[in-house]
Amino acid sequence: MTNILKSEAECIMVIFGGTGDLTYRKLIPALYNLFHEQSLSEKFAIVGVGRKTLSNAEYQHQLLEAIRKYSHFPISTDIWEQFSKKLSYYPLNFLDETGYLDLNSYLTKLDQAFSTQGNRLYYLAVSPEYFKNIPLNLKKNSMINNQLKQRLVIEKPFGKDLTTAKYLNEILTSTFHQDNIYRIDHYLGKEMYQNMLVIRFGNAMFEGIWNSKYIDNIQITASEVIGVKTRGGYYDSAGALRDMIQSHLLQFLALVAMEPPIKIDAASIRDEKIKLLRSLNEIELLEGNVVRGQYGSKLNNDLLIPSYREEAGISNISITETYVALRLFANNFRWGNMPFYLRTGKRMAAKTTYIVIEFKSFPDILYFKDKHLKPNLLEIRIEPEEGVSFQFNTKRPGTTQIIENVKMDFCQNCNFESNSPEAYERLLADILRNDQTLFTSWEEIEASWSFVDRIADLWKHIRAQRPPLVEPINAT
Amino acid sequence: MTNILKSEAECIMVIFGGTGDLTYRKLIPALYNLFHEQSLSEKFAIVGVGRKTLSNAEYQHQLLEAIRKYSHFPISTDIWEQFSKKLSYYPLNFLDETGYLDLNSYLTKLDQAFSTQGNRLYYLAVSPEYFKNIPLNLKKNSMINNQLKQRLVIEKPFGKDLTTAKYLNEILTSTFHQDNIYRIDHYLGKEMYQNMLVIRFGNAMFEGIWNSKYIDNIQITASEVIGVKTRGGYYDSAGALRDMIQSHLLQFLALVAMEPPIKIDAASIRDEKIKLLRSLNEIELLEGNVVRGQYGSKLNNDLLIPSYREEAGISNISITETYVALRLFANNFRWGNMPFYLRTGKRMAAKTTYIVIEFKSFPDILYFKDKHLKPNLLEIRIEPEEGVSFQFNTKRPGTTQIIENVKMDFCQNCNFESNSPEAYERLLADILRNDQTLFTSWEEIEASWSFVDRIADLWKHIRAQRPPLVEPINAT
Repeated sequence: MTNILKSEAECIMVIFGGTGDLTYRKLIPALYNLFHEQSLSEKFAIVGVGRKTLSNAEYQHQLLEAIRKYSHFPISTDIWEQFSKKLSYYPLNFLDETGYLDLNSYLTKLDQAFSTQGNRLYYLAVSPEYFKNIPLNLKKNSMINNQLKQRLVIEKPFGKDLTTAKYLNEILTSTFHQDNIYRIDHYLGKEMYQNMLVIRFGNAMFEGIWNSKYIDNIQITASEVIGVKTRGGYYDSAGALRDMIQSHLLQFLALVAMEPPIKIDAASIRDEKIKLLRSLNEIELLEGNVVRGQYGSKLNNDLLIPSYREEAGISNISITETYVALRLFANNFRWGNMPFYLRTGKRMAAKTTYIVIEFKSFPDILYFKDKHLKPNLLEIRIEPEEGVSFQFNTKRPGTTQIIENVKMDFCQNCNFESNSPEAYERLLADILRNDQTLFTSWEEIEASWSFVDRIADLWKHIRAQRPPLVEPINAT
Repeated sequence: MTNILKSEAECIMVIFGGTGDLTYRKLIPALYNLFHEQSLSEKFAIVGVGRKTLSNAEYQHQLLEAIRKYSHFPISTDIWEQFSKKLSYYPLNFLDETGYLDLNSYLTKLDQAFSTQGNRLYYLAVSPEYFKNIPLNLKKNSMINNQLKQRLVIEKPFGKDLTTAKYLNEILTSTFHQDNIYRIDHYLGKEMYQNMLVIRFGNAMFEGIWNSKYIDNIQITASEVIGVKTRGGYYDSAGALRDMIQSHLLQFLALVAMEPPIKIDAASIRDEKIKLLRSLNEIELLEGNVVRGQYGSKLNNDLLIPSYREEAGISNISITETYVALRLFANNFRWGNMPFYLRTGKRMAAKTTYIVIEFKSFPDILYFKDKHLKPNLLEIRIEPEEGVSFQFNTKRPGTTQIIENVKMDFCQNCNFESNSPEAYERLLADILRNDQTLFTSWEEIEASWSFVDRIADLWKHIRAQRPPLVEPINAT
């Protein structure tokens, strides 16, 4: 861990939604861990902004409890003592324009106290309905007067289709400089997402065969065991396509399939990801290549696990899909007619995210009539286990010629001493050092919404129909 | 393990050198294990032939002791009881022509007792001085009257240069049919030697990059910790070049580098190995690419480990090399100007035989300036450990971009239930089912002696000089 010494790291971080779930579970524990590792500047402070009325002491007490529960470093009294000095709370109704004036005064005082020279990091840990008003109110109150010193972090969803995303982008870019907008996707902070770059471009053997001449297909899977839980309200208007494919899975695809960038930096990598995402739109979408489903109910040991329509916050005539499987193609020289399979769903057998590169088989000669012979697979496990394995064929020891299918394995999170840092730790550290590599650019968002809108259009004529029911494989 | 049901498996095995080290340590334990696995025909018997005078009971007792010591299956009274019925001893001076007549009568009686229909397997487990006389005497006494039913197994060395090998080949082929001569090289019975075929031709991913476009170099290493021990007499006239390179290492090279055969059978594989070995002779040998050494003495905890010249049976002015390292090239399209490195020596740091495929690096871009970045290596471990590993680069978990060099590993002899069978078990089973795949053809011997003779010629002008002294790394 290198310390973040850049002046950009010297700032006030203003968290809108300071009493929300994301703040308690992810942001504050991640910031505490960064502080614990001495990766936060001394000239750094955190202000939670929310509607509730809370004293600083009360707020700090809640954050302490959150760190105790969610931090991977255990809490240390000394470190908390120092860290808590950086934490304060400011009550505000996000829609109340006038309140921002006082907030600005408060932040200006903090600027002086922490010598942060007007640098601000505004973090929108709020529901999408505030994505428009908060930036506009910040602007109206001259809280973004120096664009280079003020950054915005925005959580997904970034729109719900291309039109709404464009509208949101217009508002944000009318208030913040495009370079200072960080569209966060926590899947991109996962170790193995970042490792994909090293695996592809740090290993000549892999990159040499990373094309449709050698690869038969690439599978990207993200499955969850849980249902919608408390997210029903948002989820029912989004569905698996918008919630998972548009953001996480298309981002994985872009990184796995893009051309080598000319440099390992944000701009060069984004250039290549955008090209890949755009190439998806050059290929006709066939209806048979786009499968959807909605989970049904299941009797589990005399307990009825509700169907999707019976979950809290879900319409009982909902036609929202909770499962999507896609077969898609990239229109470029590297991938020719090779299929990519993207799959995601809720109430599946296991919580797991992984990528499988399936290599072509030989023509049916030599050993290839052997029934034990399976294709070579390179598997990149993203979560919960992190690692790389390679499936290949070997001779079973003995005096016969039986072939066995075996795996070489490297387990990333078993082999390195420390656990991988939480995705948010990495992403916050990157924002503080102004590194956009792991954040989604507007052009990527645009290309992936274009693609996702085409699928949604395919489904238009069946809009009134419920997706095929899928029996939950697991129900917890 | 499939049973050997072919009629060829029904035979009398006649071991010349029936009281020798090879018989006790390798052949009889291997035969016992095959019997234990029910892989020997009921119509099968073993006759040990030697100069000593021994009763059958005495001989069987000695073999029982040998099995106890060297078999990987523990001895079982029941099984030994049955196995021992197949074992007898016949005393003979190998050079005494007339004695063969009586031996033949004895074998004919056994033929009847075991219903083996005149099928014989003559095994020359004797020193090379008898390689000529035994076959000639067998022929003179009409013990090879039906060429298709009688096989000869011959241990190395097969000559000491091309001229003597040709002479030996003429004698053997004047007595046995070429197809019935098994030139045994126990390295070729090792699991991972055989596995090379499956690894190369059962895994599309490997074969796709198995050429000089992707591979930087291939290293084949066979090192021993021991000195010459009791083999001084033979070894001093051979040296590492003839003892290890001509046979084992060139065989490994041939299998690793050959073109894909049209079938997985002896004739097709030999065709490809021969072409590879011959291609070595199309390239000029540079003196700097051929390095030799002789081990010196070493003081090890106040104990002086003798130098090679001080070992038993070695001339005190010996110029025999105990270490050889070669850089060589195959003149074909697949391997272009890519170097192969062959290394072998005694008194080295470890007893180990392995092959390393070192892949090319990328040009010096992206991650390739990273000092942690190492080339991709595919390592095939042949002994004592058996397995395959792949070295690649991964990102060290954390918020920085440090690259780590890690290994995926598959340990063949850890992952399969039973231990790999001894090389001799596999090879004897193959002889019994008339499978020549793991035996060296005359054309391979011819091509490898041609190559080795050229190295010996290079050394002619320094023939009177002792090879550079090498300090023993290990001395046990």
